[in-house]
Amino acid sequence: MKIFQILFLFTFFSVISHASVNDFCVADVKAPNTYSGYPCKPVAKITSDDFVFHGLVAAKTNNSFKIGVTSATVTNFPALNGLGISAMRVDMDEGGLSPMHTHPDATELGIVVQGEFTAGFLTPTSFYSKVLKAGDVFVVPKGMLHFAINSGKGKAIGYVSFSSENPTIHTLDSLLFANKLPSDLVAKTTLLDLEQVKKLKARFGGSG
Amino acid sequence: MKIFQILFLFTFFSVISHASVNDFCVADVKAPNTYSGYPCKPVAKITSDDFVFHGLVAAKTNNSFKIGVTSATVTNFPALNGLGISAMRVDMDEGGLSPMHTHPDATELGIVVQGEFTAGFLTPTSFYSKVLKAGDVFVVPKGMLHFAINSGKGKAIGYVSFSSENPTIHTLDSLLFANKLPSDLVAKTTLLDLEQVKKLKARFGGSG
Amino acid sequence: MKIFQILFLFTFFSVISHASVNDFCVADVKAPNTYSGYPCKPVAKITSDDFVFHGLVAAKTNNSFKIGVTSATVTNFPALNGLGISAMRVDMDEGGLSPMHTHPDATELGIVVQGEFTAGFLTPTSFYSKVLKAGDVFVVPKGMLHFAINSGKGKAIGYVSFSSENPTIHTLDSLLFANKLPSDLVAKTTLLDLEQVKKLKARFGGSG
Amino acid sequence: MKIFQILFLFTFFSVISHASVNDFCVADVKAPNTYSGYPCKPVAKITSDDFVFHGLVAAKTNNSFKIGVTSATVTNFPALNGLGISAMRVDMDEGGLSPMHTHPDATELGIVVQGEFTAGFLTPTSFYSKVLKAGDVFVVPKGMLHFAINSGKGKAIGYVSFSSENPTIHTLDSLLFANKLPSDLVAKTTLLDLEQVKKLKARFGGSG
Amino acid sequence: MKIFQILFLFTFFSVISHASVNDFCVADVKAPNTYSGYPCKPVAKITSDDFVFHGLVAAKTNNSFKIGVTSATVTNFPALNGLGISAMRVDMDEGGLSPMHTHPDATELGIVVQGEFTAGFLTPTSFYSKVLKAGDVFVVPKGMLHFAINSGKGKAIGYVSFSSENPTIHTLDSLLFANKLPSDLVAKTTLLDLEQVKKLKARFGGSG
Amino acid sequence: MKIFQILFLFTFFSVISHASVNDFCVADVKAPNTYSGYPCKPVAKITSDDFVFHGLVAAKTNNSFKIGVTSATVTNFPALNGLGISAMRVDMDEGGLSPMHTHPDATELGIVVQGEFTAGFLTPTSFYSKVLKAGDVFVVPKGMLHFAINSGKGKAIGYVSFSSENPTIHTLDSLLFANKLPSDLVAKTTLLDLEQVKKLKARFGGSG
Repeated sequence: MKIFQILFLFTFFSVISHASVNDFCVADVKAPNTYSGYPCKPVAKITSDDFVFHGLVAAKTNNSFKIGVTSATVTNFPALNGLGISAMRVDMDEGGLSPMHTHPDATELGIVVQGEFTAGFLTPTSFYSKVLKAGDVFVVPKGMLHFAINSGKGKAIGYVSFSSENPTIHTLDSLLFANKLPSDLVAKTTLLDLEQVKKLKARFGGSG
Repeated sequence: MKIFQILFLFTFFSVISHASVNDFCVADVKAPNTYSGYPCKPVAKITSDDFVFHGLVAAKTNNSFKIGVTSATVTNFPALNGLGISAMRVDMDEGGLSPMHTHPDATELGIVVQGEFTAGFLTPTSFYSKVLKAGDVFVVPKGMLHFAINSGKGKAIGYVSFSSENPTIHTLDSLLFANKLPSDLVAKTTLLDLEQVKKLKARFGGSG
Repeated sequence: MKIFQILFLFTFFSVISHASVNDFCVADVKAPNTYSGYPCKPVAKITSDDFVFHGLVAAKTNNSFKIGVTSATVTNFPALNGLGISAMRVDMDEGGLSPMHTHPDATELGIVVQGEFTAGFLTPTSFYSKVLKAGDVFVVPKGMLHFAINSGKGKAIGYVSFSSENPTIHTLDSLLFANKLPSDLVAKTTLLDLEQVKKLKARFGGSG
Repeated sequence: MKIFQILFLFTFFSVISHASVNDFCVADVKAPNTYSGYPCKPVAKITSDDFVFHGLVAAKTNNSFKIGVTSATVTNFPALNGLGISAMRVDMDEGGLSPMHTHPDATELGIVVQGEFTAGFLTPTSFYSKVLKAGDVFVVPKGMLHFAINSGKGKAIGYVSFSSENPTIHTLDSLLFANKLPSDLVAKTTLLDLEQVKKLKARFGGSG
Repeated sequence: MKIFQILFLFTFFSVISHASVNDFCVADVKAPNTYSGYPCKPVAKITSDDFVFHGLVAAKTNNSFKIGVTSATVTNFPALNGLGISAMRVDMDEGGLSPMHTHPDATELGIVVQGEFTAGFLTPTSFYSKVLKAGDVFVVPKGMLHFAINSGKGKAIGYVSFSSENPTIHTLDSLLFANKLPSDLVAKTTLLDLEQVKKLKARFGGSG
Repeated sequence: MKIFQILFLFTFFSVISHASVNDFCVADVKAPNTYSGYPCKPVAKITSDDFVFHGLVAAKTNNSFKIGVTSATVTNFPALNGLGISAMRVDMDEGGLSPMHTHPDATELGIVVQGEFTAGFLTPTSFYSKVLKAGDVFVVPKGMLHFAINSGKGKAIGYVSFSSENPTIHTLDSLLFANKLPSDLVAKTTLLDLEQVKKLKARFGGSG
């Protein structure tokens, strides 16, 4: 029966080989990006290795926020292209924190694995904040300004997923204080005191 | 020939009356909302008036920001439901400004009609800002932190469109200072000085 | 503290520079288009000027429709790429009009700034039409056949936004009468008299 | 082993029963519609019959266009809700035609089964038209004004699919001539002669 | 009046020629694909022929499943690019069948033209199956495992549409038995007997 | 200055309270579902607790597959409604496995936390499979048939995210063997031996 089968495969399954490229589209990250993602790497060059990212492990936390972040997004894990999902691992030493930030086009879902976080997000009329322990899941709808702190004893560890393969991180301090936007303009449009602005500009490497 | 036509209309165009509801979906704003918009008002109750909003005129500017904003969004112009667009008129007295804010799920396109604005938006690594005069159009991609000031003489007027029928406005000062999120937590996660936080909490009606 | 900060920026914010391309995607309009927009111009080449369009001012109205249209869409304002919004300014002299047309994939929101328009759109079973004055906003759901006339005294001016960065204008007369589709076929499929078709073909530069 | 299996089913597959509603969403067409479709009929009430539509057969063609159209769209085949597809059968007697029309939010794909059609669609600068025979497939991108005529001998039959479960049909003559929009306004905005407008208004049951 | 018209066309319709590329985007199938489709062929090279596919006729059925499938999808009908629709013709000899398969990202709508099919799809808790005759329409929501058999006398013929221009076919037997995934791993993860797996691997050309 | 502020809040921020409902839409899971999700719980009833799910911890593994699955999806974590993301925790004892299954409308991203998994997915022409250790991330594009086994010593633990708030699990054995679809029909359309089908029907609680 195998002989008939081969003939059959030729006529019937020929549809498959043409079309299979669209089941996934591993990014050719060196090609020009588009608003909806990267062009695809040719199917013939795709191997099992493309679908695995190694090293979503603890990053160093020897910085002033005592936070370590490792991420697997489309730029270092091209198989995520077009699939609308990505991941990070977050480690915070005792007293560490993730400063106020937004992900303009991604919802964030956090899973607490160890320790205790206090996480929250802000809306124009309210805020939503909780103390989270191992086994808790927290969701921050896309575009919301949010933060997290290690509010417990010892290290806190969590995994975070995003509803985008390429989430950007807009940390408030970077936005306001790490560039050359004139200090008085920042002060005026945030209502912060000019000295406060200058102090943080100095700290975050901004000028103006 | 009119008689045949009537028969024809009965058999052929019957398709139309059933289906026409989906060309538009004027919101029944009293029904429960969904993530993708409101249920539709029955077609039989829709009139020409549903597709017109009156009063996108100058709002009062006698507030501390010297700004007046009038908006036509799905909540007061239900015909926009599902159509992904809305509008505002912005008037600023000399010296007025629109403080730093985001629209988490809407791109903003601004058209300057009178006077001079300086508008800009911030990214983690840069900022984009320009002086705008009558006839200039400025675009702020969705989710970006942005501001505008009246940088000229006299009143400045502009029309703004959004790529959402229900854009929300997340003014940074409201997010940070108008609620009860504890001041020390705000200070810690923004790196602002605690006194600065308390000063602005007092001004924006927040506590904690 | 600045020194720790620099180290911190290196480890923590490295995420940002990779990913920031996707907050916006200024079109490289010389690259081949795709169904969902143009490839992106490299981030390094983007400046504040990319986000501003100059000249959304009155266009000349010395044509038979007494209408002047200026547009800011992705083809002349590449920053709109992927953002789903664009704008036009419409000026009509007294007696001017915008002939029946559709935008196949864009909702149109019009703001009346001066004068009086009568605007309307048509459905298979009804029509929705209103006299509009300064401060009125009118919405035409995507794909609907619609028109506007200056129904008042003197000039009428409006701004129009679209829920697409690249709205196309399908003017009915151009569709039917500006090409070489045989006149008898047009007559047959529109039920217009053949002479009527030929008369308008002559006027709109069509043949056949 | 069956006993362990039952326990297993309880703990592991419990996930399934909760979630299965979203694999499909058969419309409850009596509930209020939304822009993105109808609410779902409860899963418990869904049977095999819901997924079958009977009667996509030849409709009568005894009308002035000699066309018969039978449709299976969400309004009479509620299982299509949310699935973005629907179908029609079109029969045309010799000399029959489908007058100029658009589907504002659906691409149309036509398969010729018998006879000969000439079908085409119009753009502002061109038109695309072909003679089609059995086995030919024709596509009309969404929102394009298009037509079809039986250009052969005897009956012509085709099946049509739409990229929407609820395509609307905007026949040009119905839009322009079947309602009460004043004849002079129609004439002015289409550039048709007033007499032509009145003649067709009379034929299509319009007035004004 | 033609002279004014020409001037008018120059100022007013200039908008159109720039933008018309986006009404459709015929695929340049030799350019690298993206997750959301192919880049567009230049508008200047598009002709009426692009919008027609020839040969959606009966395919040979001399294979072990007694099925013949002809398809018109984006790979051989590039005009479908971005339009979210495609078609197939299915012929089955008496006793023929379409084995269990899924289309991971396309809903399938089938129209029975001749003969009798029994078609069905499976869910974790139920199945939906019907005997279908000429004029019946059947829908399989996207991603569902489904089958069809010719359950009548003589040949059965149907047309199938998909809510994707590039539907892939994942035949269960090909997935499980046509590749080199080790037989014991297949047996373990399907609970099929190892001998059964090996028997079908031999038949479908797999190994391991 | 606080007094002016209050006036200001009244005029300027009034926009905010109307619109804030759309930043998120916590599901009212007792209301009828729609294809695109549940209606929203009123904003006034939403508290911080809505955004936290408790108990994404190890589930019992005392079943024949030695697997424990705990999930946080829209049905038990209504805040996920419309946000396009959800999570599961998977525990497998040594020798455990997750049998072949698909998620028809969700990409799956898995993070290995402890132990060793071998995971893979199948396409019509190939398969992609890897041995995964702690810190590895694996992605299964939506709709692909896939499996995972604990291929190491001791327990294996992972977190899984989905690009849908309501992923369904279509386990192959449940689809084929847990319902009443006649055994001979299953055998015929899968090419499995009839005895094999009956054996597994008995094991999975199916009949027919």
